[in-house]
Formats: sequence, structure tokens, C-alpha cells
Amino acid sequence: MIQHPDKGQIEAANTRIKSWVHHTPLLSSSSLNSIFGGTLLFKCENFQRAGAFKFRGAINTLVQLDPAHLRQGVATHSSGNHAAALALAARLIGTTAHIVMPENSNRVKIAATQSYGGSITFCAPTLLSRESTLEEVIQRTNAIEIHPYNNLHIIEGQATAAFEVFEEIADVDQIIAPVGGGGLLSGTALSARYFSPHTRVIAAEPQGADDAYRSFSSQQFVPSENPQTIADGLRTSLGSLTFPVIMNFVDEIVTVSEDSIVEAMRLIWERMKIIIEPSSAVPLAALLETKVNVAGKKTVIILSGGNVDLRHLPF
Amino acid sequence: MIQHPDKGQIEAANTRIKSWVHHTPLLSSSSLNSIFGGTLLFKCENFQRAGAFKFRGAINTLVQLDPAHLRQGVATHSSGNHAAALALAARLIGTTAHIVMPENSNRVKIAATQSYGGSITFCAPTLLSRESTLEEVIQRTNAIEIHPYNNLHIIEGQATAAFEVFEEIADVDQIIAPVGGGGLLSGTALSARYFSPHTRVIAAEPQGADDAYRSFSSQQFVPSENPQTIADGLRTSLGSLTFPVIMNFVDEIVTVSEDSIVEAMRLIWERMKIIIEPSSAVPLAALLETKVNVAGKKTVIILSGGNVDLRHLPF
Repeated sequence: MIQHPDKGQIEAANTRIKSWVHHTPLLSSSSLNSIFGGTLLFKCENFQRAGAFKFRGAINTLVQLDPAHLRQGVATHSSGNHAAALALAARLIGTTAHIVMPENSNRVKIAATQSYGGSITFCAPTLLSRESTLEEVIQRTNAIEIHPYNNLHIIEGQATAAFEVFEEIADVDQIIAPVGGGGLLSGTALSARYFSPHTRVIAAEPQGADDAYRSFSSQQFVPSENPQTIADGLRTSLGSLTFPVIMNFVDEIVTVSEDSIVEAMRLIWERMKIIIEPSSAVPLAALLETKVNVAGKKTVIILSGGNVDLRHLPF
Repeated sequence: MIQHPDKGQIEAANTRIKSWVHHTPLLSSSSLNSIFGGTLLFKCENFQRAGAFKFRGAINTLVQLDPAHLRQGVATHSSGNHAAALALAARLIGTTAHIVMPENSNRVKIAATQSYGGSITFCAPTLLSRESTLEEVIQRTNAIEIHPYNNLHIIEGQATAAFEVFEEIADVDQIIAPVGGGGLLSGTALSARYFSPHTRVIAAEPQGADDAYRSFSSQQFVPSENPQTIADGLRTSLGSLTFPVIMNFVDEIVTVSEDSIVEAMRLIWERMKIIIEPSSAVPLAALLETKVNVAGKKTVIILSGGNVDLRHLPF
């Protein structure tokens, strides 16, 4: 038996966080529809607060903490969007977020975390250093650890992005999300199962960080080791909660090259005039590589975030 | 007596082009609202077809041409968004657009014009060369000239952007548009006058291309000579139709520095995660320079377009 949020818990999460999150738009582009020969709808989590879907899970988790825990603060290690999201959620709720960030993190994500009042401790860019530094911070502060994806409340929160999609439109043939740690993908798969059961759920992953693809294919957990991809949100391993959900509720995982990711990112910037980070471009890269058939179908693509360093663009 | 579209003509233009244009969203950003201390709403014409408000005027003009004229084709000189918009409108209506473009035009705008099937003739980057080349093209093809802004149907079309704003929201204290040739500004001012008469109409212009500011202040037409600004859509002079409308219906024109334009552009990219071209950033630059007071007010800013060369960004 696997452990995951049920239908009522996702509905409750949606109600709980509705006033905190942005109900992000579903955008389309006639030029992309004509290039790909199908109806593409983009769920714009790049417009979410703190610039990524991560805020959904963070706020859903923090508003459920009891007052005693809130006084102790919250803590996590993250190189990116979860850090900024947790810092913003903590500020809104009135607690402190202690964030351990690798010293080589994206400049813009560090600045965002600081601007939301997160208390940052830098560490060496290894999982070992992240975990041991977080342990020290927690011992010092007594803060509650909020894992970026291996947490049921986080998964419930991330599920609300697809929940909003299925509430808004019917007859979605397929929904494609990128996969890193699997929080967004697990939530998306659960929402599809509960609220749009005929919708196929597809994950897209960089070839240079294809641990989820290999885990899914072999039905054995494969960790992410030395991932090489521009998609900085997708370098992490699946978790003990997300892997079983993905095995059970995701229909397919496809992988894409770095060139396709950059080309897909450019296409979205140029045609849709919106800013997405490389991780968000991975599903459209799968269309460019014809790994997903969209002809004549209604396909939803989740654009996971928009936090990108404008001084270091790949084109 | 000045010549300009009346209320019914703008309503009719809106009805006429509704099925051709995108009804663009009005977006807001909580972080920009908190930086500026007021409610800012951005009318996203960067999401318009062909990437700029120019498509409104182009399609409104072309659908009113009679079949004989349509067989002859249409022609214009333009270095930018009017070229692409006219090419797209011509393709949709089933006629040919002959476009004279200065050879130093923005690469992306040339590519867009070509992709919409526009027939481009390049010329030297001077007004004299543009006009004489256009004259040759018209003599050769017998095409009808469609001026980018000094044309009542164009002004009617551009007016529909603000028309949509006033149809969607009430109690707008002020609306700010950039000014180049004055087509968008004239249309915006007329729509405000007819559909939201208590709304102040403010124009923002680069200091390095401040012919509209000087014309407005001196009440005498001042041409744009050797304009120096990154805002490539705002280098042109006012026209004989747009200048009187602006004198009569615009409340104020303010000018801004190049540094503020780049800073405003970066703010919108980073905070709103949308792509705008430098011309679109000019109104927000006026807020950065505190030339417009927005505290406690509801201010609409028209983002005129999003066609920018991603290989040559100013930051």
C-alpha cells in the first residue's frame, strides 16, 4: 500500500491555499498550436508567487503547522525555488525560514530568498554538506524541517496546480510536467487520477538527469548522480513518497536533450512572450523531439517556474 | 475642428476586429504594487498577435478595404512592429503586404515580417530613402499605402486596447501609454474620453526622442530629429492627425532617461516574468523617476509590444 494524498485532501488543500496563491492562467499560442498541429495549453506557474509552483506546497505545509512549531521556525536545504517559496510562505505566516543553500546556487534564487527574509546558511555544493549543514541549523534553532518534495502536505499543495487546470477545462487528453524530485509530478498525477481520469500523465526529464526515467523503466529506485543539465530544478532524486506515486499513476516518462531544452525555451520566450526557466521548457522539448504525439489532441503543459538569471541566458 | 474617430466608430472598430485580435489580459504583480504603493494593471499588448498593439490598427484598416483595393495589395514603410502587423493582417485577409524596411532594422522584426509572408524591400535608414523607396514600390505594384499611425482607421484600431481596459475595469484613475508616432496614444486618449472620462491620460516618452513632449509643451509640432533611444518603437514624429488629438485629449507628457527604461524593463521581466520590448518599459520608467504619482491610485499601463532580439538584451 502506498501513502499519498486522497481526493478530499487535494480538494481541501486547494480550498486552504486559494487565498494565498495566484490562480495562474492557462495560456495558449496560435503560432505554437500551428507548429505542433494540436491544442497546447500552458499552465503558467512561472507567474506563481515567488516565481514557481513551489509556493503552493510551501504555503500548504506552513498553514497546517501548529503555533508551537511556528514559533520554532522552519528549515530546509534547497538550491532554488523551494528556498524562495519557503522564505516567502514563512514571512506571510509570521515565522522564520532557515535555508541551507549550496554556495554555487543561482544568484537570482539566492537574492529572491534573501528578499523574502529567509535566513540563509551557505554550504558546499554536495548532498552530504547540505544535509550535515541542515542538521546543524536544526540543532541550533529547533526549526521544523520542510522537505522540498518528500512530504505529503507539499505533494497536496503541488497537486493544486493541475487541480486548477481540471476545474477550468474539460477533455484534456494529456498533461505533461517536468520531473525532478517528483513533487509536482506526483501531485499532477494524483489530480489527474481523481479529477480527470481519462487524461494521460506524461513526465519529461533531461537526458543528463534521467534518474526518474531509469527508476520508472526498471521499477527500482535509481538515485540522481552527477546530473548534467541546464534545467537546474530537475537535478534531484525522487523521494520515498514520490517514487511510488509516480510508478502507480504516471503513464510515461520521456527524456530530452539539452539542445532541445534550449530550443524549447527560446520558442516559448519568442512566441509566447513569457519568461520561463530551463526546467519549464523540458515538456515542450519532448514535443520538439516528437517523443509525445500532440496532433489533434488537447495537451496541457505545466510551466513550472520563471526564475532565471537574465545575465546568463543560453541564447 | 480636429478630425478623429468618434465614440461610435471606436465601438464599431472593437466589434469589427474582435474575432481577429487577442483580447489581451490585464496583469498585475503584488511585488510591483508594493514597490510603488499603488495598484498597477498592465494591459499586455506584448501578447497581441504579431507581438504588439499594431495588429489592431492594421487589421481594422485592412478589413475595411474594398475588394478592388485588396487585389492591389497594401504597402508601408516601417522598421518594426507595424511591418509585421501589416504582413500578418494582409495574410489573414488574403492580400499582399509590400513593406519597405530600413536595412538596419531589428533582426527579429525583419524575420517576423518575412514569416508572415510580407514582401520586403530594404532601403537606407533615412526618412528620405524610406519615402522614396515606398513611392517606387507603390508605382510598381499599385498597392494602397497604409500609414503606421496617421490614418483614422489605424487610430480607431489602436483605441480598442484601452476600450477593452475600460470595458473590463472601472475607476481607473490614470492610464499611461508610450508615445512614438502617437497612434496608440491618440486611440488611448479618445477611448478614455468616451468610455472613462474621469481617467487621466498620461504619455511617457524617452528624453532622447522627446519630440512629442516638446510639441505638447510648445503647442507647435516639433519633428523627431536624430532620436537616440533604445526604445526603437518611439523614434518617429507625431502625425498631422495624431498631434491635434494629443493636444486636446492628453493630460500630460513626461520624459524618462535611458537608464530608467532599462531598469523598468528589467523590473517587468524579473517580477512579472513577461517579455516586453524597451518601448513598453517607458511608462514604468516614469514611475521609477517619480514623474507620475501612483500612490493609492489605480493606474493602467499599456505594454505596447514584446518583440525583442534575445541575443541583444540591455542587461
